Amino acid sequence: MVDLPDISSTTFSVIENAFSLVFASFLGAAVFFLVSRRDVARAYRTSVTVCGVVVVIAAYHYFRIFESFKSAYGVAGGVATPSGEIFNEAYRYMDWIITVPLLVVELILVMGLVSARRRSLLYRLVPAAFAMIALGYPGELSTDVATQWLWWGLAMIPFVYILFVLFGEVSKVIQDQPIEVQPLFRVVRVALVATWMFYPIAYLFPILLGNTGLALALENIGYAVADLTAKAGYGLVIFLIAKRKSELERLVPSAQPVVATS
Amino acid sequence: MVDLPDISSTTFSVIENAFSLVFASFLGAAVFFLVSRRDVARAYRTSVTVCGVVVVIAAYHYFRIFESFKSAYGVAGGVATPSGEIFNEAYRYMDWIITVPLLVVELILVMGLVSARRRSLLYRLVPAAFAMIALGYPGELSTDVATQWLWWGLAMIPFVYILFVLFGEVSKVIQDQPIEVQPLFRVVRVALVATWMFYPIAYLFPILLGNTGLALALENIGYAVADLTAKAGYGLVIFLIAKRKSELERLVPSAQPVVATS
Repeated sequence: MVDLPDISSTTFSVIENAFSLVFASFLGAAVFFLVSRRDVARAYRTSVTVCGVVVVIAAYHYFRIFESFKSAYGVAGGVATPSGEIFNEAYRYMDWIITVPLLVVELILVMGLVSARRRSLLYRLVPAAFAMIALGYPGELSTDVATQWLWWGLAMIPFVYILFVLFGEVSKVIQDQPIEVQPLFRVVRVALVATWMFYPIAYLFPILLGNTGLALALENIGYAVADLTAKAGYGLVIFLIAKRKSELERLVPSAQPVVATS
Repeated sequence: MVDLPDISSTTFSVIENAFSLVFASFLGAAVFFLVSRRDVARAYRTSVTVCGVVVVIAAYHYFRIFESFKSAYGVAGGVATPSGEIFNEAYRYMDWIITVPLLVVELILVMGLVSARRRSLLYRLVPAAFAMIALGYPGELSTDVATQWLWWGLAMIPFVYILFVLFGEVSKVIQDQPIEVQPLFRVVRVALVATWMFYPIAYLFPILLGNTGLALALENIGYAVADLTAKAGYGLVIFLIAKRKSELERLVPSAQPVVATS
């Protein structure tokens, strides 16, 4: 955690508004997932519920980040100067340590794997997700560039492992999915890599650009965009997969034993 | 973002009460849509859910606008003078960038188009809606009249495009709708143009009337009325269409395969 730089009031407003935008989006996504879970077959309902839980938790953390950012600055005469209060970016890590394992869970659940395979994936990837976040955190707290790089590199090991396993697993199960759902699984596979790649890049902004308003804006807006797509956007694709699969099974109930009758 | 003018305490109260009224209406609309979604057939349920999500997000933003307005003024002796705190009108843009694409989505979903047609509309109109809001935002941040006019003009291009396409699309599908639902689609078509026209007009008040209490009141009350009708009012018509269609399909279940049984 480095001291905050002086920033222009426009930079302050853009960051503040980005936090508010992401909070509002998570709020809307939470309502959507939690009321829409009944619209999918029972077999996929837990997956959609987990999508809802993830965005509720994310909404809470963005509310805290928004409040913390506002109290960390005083705005007067077109300039925002640090108030002395801490801008607690660690809320992000508290968020990730809960939600990233859950993001892995929702994808594994919606794949509809046999239970032994599902368990094997969960036992490997959930601990890896914990390790990834825990290893990133010391670098976030440090002000020393070498230390930041060290923890960045260490966190990248489980990061690459999780993406590698999940990408491979989705590629393998695509063939077994109904033809109507296969394009959505291809979207998930790309979305997974594309959205997760934001994080190690956003982490590097303050390391590469130093303690400037630009680095602060890029880092925070980068994380905001990444969180939004990796949680709400990705959750929406999971929901669409669950919905499509439910509709298909409703048309051919004999093909699949589990059909929602709510 | 211009400096706020001194205003009378009456003007202050009228604006403050308008914000509170709109927040309360959105809150009520959110409860209505979210509990009533189960009353429509499965095929239209997502449309009504999106109506609910839109007003939840709008309620959040009106709460923030209300609080921001109150903290931006101090009232004493019949006069409200700026406190030095920013009146963050950008919350409106953060709202629109999420909700306007969703308003387009709810209309397209309730039309019950074949999926290729629906996808084509979504792929064209949702990005146009993003572009429209993003192009309006720099004008809102600027204090220079020429800059404000420039961004107003640029935002008008996707604005006209969206209205033109949606108006045409609704006109085309009216024939295919059950006779009992056609009048409601005509209401949607008019409501779309009538409510959306408020926005470019409200945008112009501070440009045309300058930095006065009257401009502040007209702009904010104009946006409040527009938001209320374009989100809650329009959502209500969407809900009525979904409900009427569901009732008709329940009477003639063979005509449509997807009928809610829950």
